[in-house]
Amino acid sequence: MFGRNAVLLLMAILETTLSIPASKLTSHNTDIDSQIKAYENVSQKIINFVTKGEGKHQTFNRLAAMTDKFGNRLVGSETLENVIDYMLDQFKADGLENVHAEQVSNIAHWVRGKESATLLKPRHYEMSMLGLGGSIGTSAEGITAEVLVVHSFDELHARAAEAKGKIVVFDQAYVSYGVTVAYRDYGAYEASKVGGVASLIRSIAPFSINSPHTGWQDYKNGTVKVPTACITIEDAEMLSRMAARGDRIVIHLYMEAQNLPRATSRNTVAEIVGTTNPEQVVLVSGHLDSWDVGQGAMDDGGGAFISWQVLSIMRQLKLRAKRTVRAVLWTGEEVGLTGSRQYYNTHKVNISKYDMVMESDIGTFKPNGLKFTGNDEAFAIVEKIMQLLKPINASTLYHTADGGDISFWIKNGVPGGSLSNDNAEYFYFHHSNGDTITVENPDDLDLCAALWAVVAYVVADMDEMLPR
Amino acid sequence: MFGRNAVLLLMAILETTLSIPASKLTSHNTDIDSQIKAYENVSQKIINFVTKGEGKHQTFNRLAAMTDKFGNRLVGSETLENVIDYMLDQFKADGLENVHAEQVSNIAHWVRGKESATLLKPRHYEMSMLGLGGSIGTSAEGITAEVLVVHSFDELHARAAEAKGKIVVFDQAYVSYGVTVAYRDYGAYEASKVGGVASLIRSIAPFSINSPHTGWQDYKNGTVKVPTACITIEDAEMLSRMAARGDRIVIHLYMEAQNLPRATSRNTVAEIVGTTNPEQVVLVSGHLDSWDVGQGAMDDGGGAFISWQVLSIMRQLKLRAKRTVRAVLWTGEEVGLTGSRQYYNTHKVNISKYDMVMESDIGTFKPNGLKFTGNDEAFAIVEKIMQLLKPINASTLYHTADGGDISFWIKNGVPGGSLSNDNAEYFYFHHSNGDTITVENPDDLDLCAALWAVVAYVVADMDEMLPR
Repeated sequence: MFGRNAVLLLMAILETTLSIPASKLTSHNTDIDSQIKAYENVSQKIINFVTKGEGKHQTFNRLAAMTDKFGNRLVGSETLENVIDYMLDQFKADGLENVHAEQVSNIAHWVRGKESATLLKPRHYEMSMLGLGGSIGTSAEGITAEVLVVHSFDELHARAAEAKGKIVVFDQAYVSYGVTVAYRDYGAYEASKVGGVASLIRSIAPFSINSPHTGWQDYKNGTVKVPTACITIEDAEMLSRMAARGDRIVIHLYMEAQNLPRATSRNTVAEIVGTTNPEQVVLVSGHLDSWDVGQGAMDDGGGAFISWQVLSIMRQLKLRAKRTVRAVLWTGEEVGLTGSRQYYNTHKVNISKYDMVMESDIGTFKPNGLKFTGNDEAFAIVEKIMQLLKPINASTLYHTADGGDISFWIKNGVPGGSLSNDNAEYFYFHHSNGDTITVENPDDLDLCAALWAVVAYVVADMDEMLPR
Repeated sequence: MFGRNAVLLLMAILETTLSIPASKLTSHNTDIDSQIKAYENVSQKIINFVTKGEGKHQTFNRLAAMTDKFGNRLVGSETLENVIDYMLDQFKADGLENVHAEQVSNIAHWVRGKESATLLKPRHYEMSMLGLGGSIGTSAEGITAEVLVVHSFDELHARAAEAKGKIVVFDQAYVSYGVTVAYRDYGAYEASKVGGVASLIRSIAPFSINSPHTGWQDYKNGTVKVPTACITIEDAEMLSRMAARGDRIVIHLYMEAQNLPRATSRNTVAEIVGTTNPEQVVLVSGHLDSWDVGQGAMDDGGGAFISWQVLSIMRQLKLRAKRTVRAVLWTGEEVGLTGSRQYYNTHKVNISKYDMVMESDIGTFKPNGLKFTGNDEAFAIVEKIMQLLKPINASTLYHTADGGDISFWIKNGVPGGSLSNDNAEYFYFHHSNGDTITVENPDDLDLCAALWAVVAYVVADMDEMLPR
């Protein structure tokens, strides 16, 4: 009964029914198993604290207090610097350790100003729009031009002869953010290459209530910079239908957008210092800067505040790990990962002491697990740690962390984790006026904070750093 | 075996498994059964025509052409009158019969003008808002006042002493449109009664991407009229949190809204005249006027255009019923059913000739059946007719038509039907800038048109009018 075949069968059943990858079953390590088992009590204590103890709804309430008080926080703005001061005060008041800011310089500083896109022909209509980050403005008179509607870069290339002097409208289908964002990134560049005088892209979103979605865009070297903005899915589709009917379409685009002299800002840092190996670090993070629309509650208030909550829970539960747990709230993420890149360059000399780097920047909806980048041995260990999150049904370890602000460390071998959550609606709100605290669910934020805290604390407290 | 108990058992099984109400089983009428069975071929022909024949996507393309060309159509506007002229031309070009307009007078004529709601304290923030239909404007200086946030009329009454001189903000929970719309209807009236100087209501919607939802509101006699507008769910919740924290909230409200002299407009009418009983009528309808935001594609472009499509399908398929099928596109629905009320008063002298009245005004998403008001005998007959729509899974007959524009006839005994459809997201877009043709699905519109046409044609062609 318990011969080799039975064990293989049992393994197959376990794999099928529990979805436990083979890696777990092949990397048995009794010492690690028992170490992790010993965290069951503290893990449950963390979960209880945020789901029914004094920590309940703390993350939501703190995040709502910040976003209600300040609103959005574009890097370069006085508001972001006020928020950083506010966070430093909050961290100190919360009893965190080594609370400080680290200067970040040479950050892209873009401001929107007034802007409008008015359909003049075939009928008069004020379109809902948002200039894209980094775009130049128009002249004071704006640009009035005929429109060429295309649905892909390929179509633009094929119809290049028609583009000269026109405003190029991209009505590209939404495939996924990762794929379709190319039209936001390079729409202006591609339009300019074929003689277009401006570009308007269909917002990078799967759903819309007439909502434009802004975001950074890149002019590549060697082309004339032209103004660029996003319009709504609805209006892009309308322009597309008008073009298909042969209507002559004329738009007046006006944008006061400016790229100002490079700005300085700060990464915001706090710790719970380790007991036996304080120089070794588990880093949890999210970014504090946001776009200049909505409230930046989702992108990335949620990620920043669950990272604060990791330290806050440890302080409130009097938990101190062997290693230091450090929260860093990045600045300048939205304009090109500037804060996190400079942090890496400053601190990479200590890269061997970075046990694991974590960021949440793709939603703090109901959590379902962790996305992880690291070697097989590290994966197997973290997968066991994730079993501690079974009580909240968030115990799955997926392959490949998101990257973003922590990509610099991950590329250089540090194990990295990002929050996995039920974020199917994330891009409904992303970079739009819909990114507000209303999107965040207090109970889900508690679960995210619990997952984030359990992973960070246990990794920081185990006998050994994760293998790399 | 086939005794009384067995028959009762069989009936119980049929009721359980096929959901056929007992009314069907108790009103056996072989003549009606065979009459309806004879429509299977024509019904399938209609379905084939719109789902894979020349009629495919005709409704969507016609609706998109109209909304793209004209946009929204508030009653009293030149645009609505231009659209009515356009529809008359379209009806004639489509070969419909007795195409004409019928004048409607004494219609509320409200215009929005510029408007804004600016949060001044605790921080400066431009709120997304829409004035409510019928609201007066503010003075040229606007209203700057402290805010009282309440969550219900009961709370307002309990805190009446705090309301004097304040802008009353209603952050009521969304229960259902029918229940919660009371806050839009009477928010200003209730605020004024307790000395409020304006009211702002949380938009009547279950979901938001920072989207305000306008709509008509009623000042009751005997109270001072105060300006009133809607704000977004997000901002209502934010103001509510600020109030709970004890923040002093100050808002500046500016509205140029005006109630102009009463307007005239037109109901738009066309027919396919009956063969043997042309004076008897099956009426299909939707309203052509819309709010002055979005494009009125859903509310109620869809309902109006599937009603046109009933006649258009009959003309294209050379179908002519015994009775006349008449399409009426109402005017002035959004400001109080004005067009349909006057139509009733003009035509009620012939009420005995109205076989059935139908309206679609609650979405043209995927259809699932018909909602019906009529006596049991009529219900049983229409229920059998609905079986013709089994091929498109839209064969359920539900109790109680929606009312609205056809309520005048229904209240006076005429059988009434309204389209039942999978409209769970209807109030995401309703009365907002999100009401555009993007909401409409071409295939679903085809199915709606098929259902609408089969019901109208068969009812109009049966030997007898529906019993009442």
